[in-house]
Amino acid sequence: MSDRKKVGVFCSGGDAPGMNAALRSIVRRGIAQGLNIVAIHRGYKGILDEAFEKMIPRSVGNIIQTGGTVIKTARCERFYKEEGVRQAAEILKSYEFDGLIAIGGDGTFRGLLELQKVWDGQIIGIPGTIDNDIYGTDYTIGFDTAIDTAIQALDRIRDTADSHERVFIVEVMGRHSGFIALKVGIGSGAEEILIPEDEPIDLKAVAKRIKDARDRGKTSLIIIVAEGVSKPDIFTFCKKLTTQPGLEFSTHISILGHLQRGGSPSAVDRWNATRMGAYAVDCILGGDSGIMVGEQNLKLVKVPLKDTQKKKSIDRYAHSLIRDLAI
Amino acid sequence: MSDRKKVGVFCSGGDAPGMNAALRSIVRRGIAQGLNIVAIHRGYKGILDEAFEKMIPRSVGNIIQTGGTVIKTARCERFYKEEGVRQAAEILKSYEFDGLIAIGGDGTFRGLLELQKVWDGQIIGIPGTIDNDIYGTDYTIGFDTAIDTAIQALDRIRDTADSHERVFIVEVMGRHSGFIALKVGIGSGAEEILIPEDEPIDLKAVAKRIKDARDRGKTSLIIIVAEGVSKPDIFTFCKKLTTQPGLEFSTHISILGHLQRGGSPSAVDRWNATRMGAYAVDCILGGDSGIMVGEQNLKLVKVPLKDTQKKKSIDRYAHSLIRDLAI
Amino acid sequence: MSDRKKVGVFCSGGDAPGMNAALRSIVRRGIAQGLNIVAIHRGYKGILDEAFEKMIPRSVGNIIQTGGTVIKTARCERFYKEEGVRQAAEILKSYEFDGLIAIGGDGTFRGLLELQKVWDGQIIGIPGTIDNDIYGTDYTIGFDTAIDTAIQALDRIRDTADSHERVFIVEVMGRHSGFIALKVGIGSGAEEILIPEDEPIDLKAVAKRIKDARDRGKTSLIIIVAEGVSKPDIFTFCKKLTTQPGLEFSTHISILGHLQRGGSPSAVDRWNATRMGAYAVDCILGGDSGIMVGEQNLKLVKVPLKDTQKKKSIDRYAHSLIRDLAI
Amino acid sequence: MSDRKKVGVFCSGGDAPGMNAALRSIVRRGIAQGLNIVAIHRGYKGILDEAFEKMIPRSVGNIIQTGGTVIKTARCERFYKEEGVRQAAEILKSYEFDGLIAIGGDGTFRGLLELQKVWDGQIIGIPGTIDNDIYGTDYTIGFDTAIDTAIQALDRIRDTADSHERVFIVEVMGRHSGFIALKVGIGSGAEEILIPEDEPIDLKAVAKRIKDARDRGKTSLIIIVAEGVSKPDIFTFCKKLTTQPGLEFSTHISILGHLQRGGSPSAVDRWNATRMGAYAVDCILGGDSGIMVGEQNLKLVKVPLKDTQKKKSIDRYAHSLIRDLAI
Repeated sequence: MSDRKKVGVFCSGGDAPGMNAALRSIVRRGIAQGLNIVAIHRGYKGILDEAFEKMIPRSVGNIIQTGGTVIKTARCERFYKEEGVRQAAEILKSYEFDGLIAIGGDGTFRGLLELQKVWDGQIIGIPGTIDNDIYGTDYTIGFDTAIDTAIQALDRIRDTADSHERVFIVEVMGRHSGFIALKVGIGSGAEEILIPEDEPIDLKAVAKRIKDARDRGKTSLIIIVAEGVSKPDIFTFCKKLTTQPGLEFSTHISILGHLQRGGSPSAVDRWNATRMGAYAVDCILGGDSGIMVGEQNLKLVKVPLKDTQKKKSIDRYAHSLIRDLAI
Repeated sequence: MSDRKKVGVFCSGGDAPGMNAALRSIVRRGIAQGLNIVAIHRGYKGILDEAFEKMIPRSVGNIIQTGGTVIKTARCERFYKEEGVRQAAEILKSYEFDGLIAIGGDGTFRGLLELQKVWDGQIIGIPGTIDNDIYGTDYTIGFDTAIDTAIQALDRIRDTADSHERVFIVEVMGRHSGFIALKVGIGSGAEEILIPEDEPIDLKAVAKRIKDARDRGKTSLIIIVAEGVSKPDIFTFCKKLTTQPGLEFSTHISILGHLQRGGSPSAVDRWNATRMGAYAVDCILGGDSGIMVGEQNLKLVKVPLKDTQKKKSIDRYAHSLIRDLAI
Repeated sequence: MSDRKKVGVFCSGGDAPGMNAALRSIVRRGIAQGLNIVAIHRGYKGILDEAFEKMIPRSVGNIIQTGGTVIKTARCERFYKEEGVRQAAEILKSYEFDGLIAIGGDGTFRGLLELQKVWDGQIIGIPGTIDNDIYGTDYTIGFDTAIDTAIQALDRIRDTADSHERVFIVEVMGRHSGFIALKVGIGSGAEEILIPEDEPIDLKAVAKRIKDARDRGKTSLIIIVAEGVSKPDIFTFCKKLTTQPGLEFSTHISILGHLQRGGSPSAVDRWNATRMGAYAVDCILGGDSGIMVGEQNLKLVKVPLKDTQKKKSIDRYAHSLIRDLAI
Repeated sequence: MSDRKKVGVFCSGGDAPGMNAALRSIVRRGIAQGLNIVAIHRGYKGILDEAFEKMIPRSVGNIIQTGGTVIKTARCERFYKEEGVRQAAEILKSYEFDGLIAIGGDGTFRGLLELQKVWDGQIIGIPGTIDNDIYGTDYTIGFDTAIDTAIQALDRIRDTADSHERVFIVEVMGRHSGFIALKVGIGSGAEEILIPEDEPIDLKAVAKRIKDARDRGKTSLIIIVAEGVSKPDIFTFCKKLTTQPGLEFSTHISILGHLQRGGSPSAVDRWNATRMGAYAVDCILGGDSGIMVGEQNLKLVKVPLKDTQKKKSIDRYAHSLIRDLAI
């Protein structure tokens, strides 16, 4: 009946602060520009469950400042199989969706690439993950808040490390990349930063540097370890590190864990989520498909979805500074 | 040479936010009122090591807002033995100390009681511990900040629990008491709060209530567990809880750990630390000894040091509300 | 039809962090204990406008951590007149309310006292105001958060004051009382704290102390001024203070203003709001009326509503410390 | 005597969070790489006053997380005149400085350009200003923290605006540019953002939009006004806006003021300040002079100092979204 394009929006993968700001922007920009916006609850699962909700401007009132995602997110086993993807396409057709905007990480985008093979609606991705490991964009929604949260936790841990003159080993998120570890490590003035990109790590050398630092008079030290490094778990890893022959030292362990994920989004996350959400709407209006909205050089850009599966590199210059900063 | 009383001040046990505010108050009030204030570094260890530093008003500039303790704290094996205590008394005599003000918890106060037997200087304790488990005072320095820190972490975890519709088990500090767990649990709207005071805990009943809540439509739940309950460790405990026959459920675990300890002190911690520090000085001037400065009914009071070793009770009314609040 | 008592709940006067936590507690405790809870939107105005909403447990989901009040608050000119009060009573009768729980400050309680003359339902007050100026309770909902917010702002201002070696005059809330000014002043390490209780203030003496402090080598100073002191406005007041003959100095002015009012409630505000809300329900169930729920000595108590109109005193001991702490 | 290059470092202009992180990085990277680093206290004034302090690694311990600047900043009338600049050059020569690294804004860089005419040492600038108005760099130290601080304040004000259903006018920093206003406005979900770049502003049109929004059912609104717009002062400006014939409305005013300036630096500010400080050292070692270290496209770059005096533009795309986001 209506001439308005019907566009579904969903979040998928781990939640990230700023997802709600992006949703708000998509809904309001979309409606203001003549789209019919439908929220899909619980990611890909919500397509299969037909968990659709028509959005009005008030649906997204008072959420810009909230963490998590009001339209929920979930893992969806069914969608990992060809049969699930085809079923999703059928449902999208029967509900007459013209386009989809998905907020998530590289797993989410892999799903979009699969869907694209069997559904001819417009498909737009928005990078939403605290891990910042998406190729093609300088920025992903949630990373900035996660780093701030982790650094505030590290500042607290530093208080205790200093007061008791202790060595702390702190595990931060990052199974496959060191973006969080590196930025948290530099920002908290950590003495060591161990990241997956540097595997295998020479534990003896690390233990030696810690011993040397203590000999030089450093009474408290902080070692940041990305999840991808602390294998099989942080306790076992720590034991290996602290019992290097002739280089033994005692430590305390802290696992930041899930608290890095939530919280009210930072200014940057609200700003970028808002701009990216609006720009995704503009892409729908302009007829784009098969792209991710990215930020490069502070400007919004369109990135082919398949490029997002490439490997993004960390800032090696920053990493190279650690020794000098810890003198 | 000088008529001024010479008073040593030290921190002992775990660091707590507000210790620096107390130190600042002791130093400035003390000097302004005619005392000679000497900082002792690293607690009891600092007495034995003669790690003394004469304080001037500027020594404590710009520290009221900082966490940890600028005069450090440490465990001291030597002081646990009679020989160590006697040696400490000798050193205090030889340096002509007239009094000591110690900021710490019940372990610190046990040390003071031992010292009192062999040293006749004035001895004043100030309750400084995030655990709030000191009898005789409504308030201990650091508890308020620790609770706020934990609740901010819980708010973040709630974002993820809600977005993913999960059950989270969160371990908070409290080896012997549930003060932190209870206040954090009530303040974060947790569905369960498991505290050492209620041991042994009926895990089957807990699992049953969680199942019932999910059946009632609660999609996300948070269970707060004090350290004293999560035995032998939170992972094992969690496994036991989530595998009750017929009541299995899946969870995520978060350990708040050391980040509960540090951070810029809250308004209340700065306020009370400042008042208690000044009042401790007034007690020295008034000739008191063998007491802890406490707060009761918002008023500063003197509590016999030996009373501090009694057991303090949690707020049973608040605890009784959990079921109703989680409907 | 129902045997359940019907109880209305509303917020009135200035909003305060923790009002939502109290509302949540009233709704859930009330329903769990067999009451029928009805939210009244916009305070007394909502009674006259018949803005009633039946509450279910989910109505108050996910609000414990939010500032402001989800059921709104407003000033109501009509209720200040006898005619308005009588009309309110008529409406309450016609809707068959058995009781009212009102969260607000002394103005709110004056309204309750008027209403009590013409309506025979149960009337319970809960102290909700950031000003802390309610007699009969050690604690009012929102004060703790407001103080923390103000102190965080002061910490920031201190950074600039120190970096530029300046004198800052900071106006904080408190038209009739110095509770906020005093706690913020002590907690931020301010050099002067000017409160309404000390009016008329000897500006010459204040200027003299500032000059002396600068002569002693203090390069940066912070002066806290309660609204009730900065008359007719902070700019004029500041000019008067800084131009005392022979004692001139230059300053920067900062007005904290409304940001002291909002924000996610602190642990203490959530804790006490929750306890007080539940206790108000218990009072309704127990048949009480004409009382305010208060906290004294960490215990919940019932205070006759008319007592709340008395004058509460500030902590003179803390106030007496300022000179010594600023040496 | 020494072969080590002697490099002075100072802060100038308004303080900004992250200046201390930059200083730490310069000192440690510099010393580790063989430079002799000397802190100059109070900016240009410190050169004329010969307020020099030799730095060692510990001089900058525990400052990465602090706001303001530990080496102070100041305005310097004398340096604005040719005579002052020549005198500074003489002093730098007599103390045998080989280079200078200055952290500050465009005024600071104008000073460097003057100094360059009469002194032949190496001159490197680092952009440190919360205003973000430096051409040639995507980023300036302190902007990110300032925006986060302002948005947290706005979140609080929104709580009160919502609870009381009011219009708030909030003045934020920005005398000549709208960078802060725009990012704060977008991030806080403000309904209007008035910036100097859009002068003269059509107040009638603004008042009309506010009236329309209220007619549409928006009960609370927030209007962000940059300092450069609120002329002659925010009170007068507000009166003009709210008394447009036929479009009158009542408002509350909030002035964020100095609290936007201080505070513990955000992760991004620590990260970039650290990288820029280290890179400035690398530039000294590489023989560069007459440049500002900037960030473009996440990479560190060298920008000719004179380019920094050009006008930087705001993000017009973001600005264009406001109407749609406020529906």
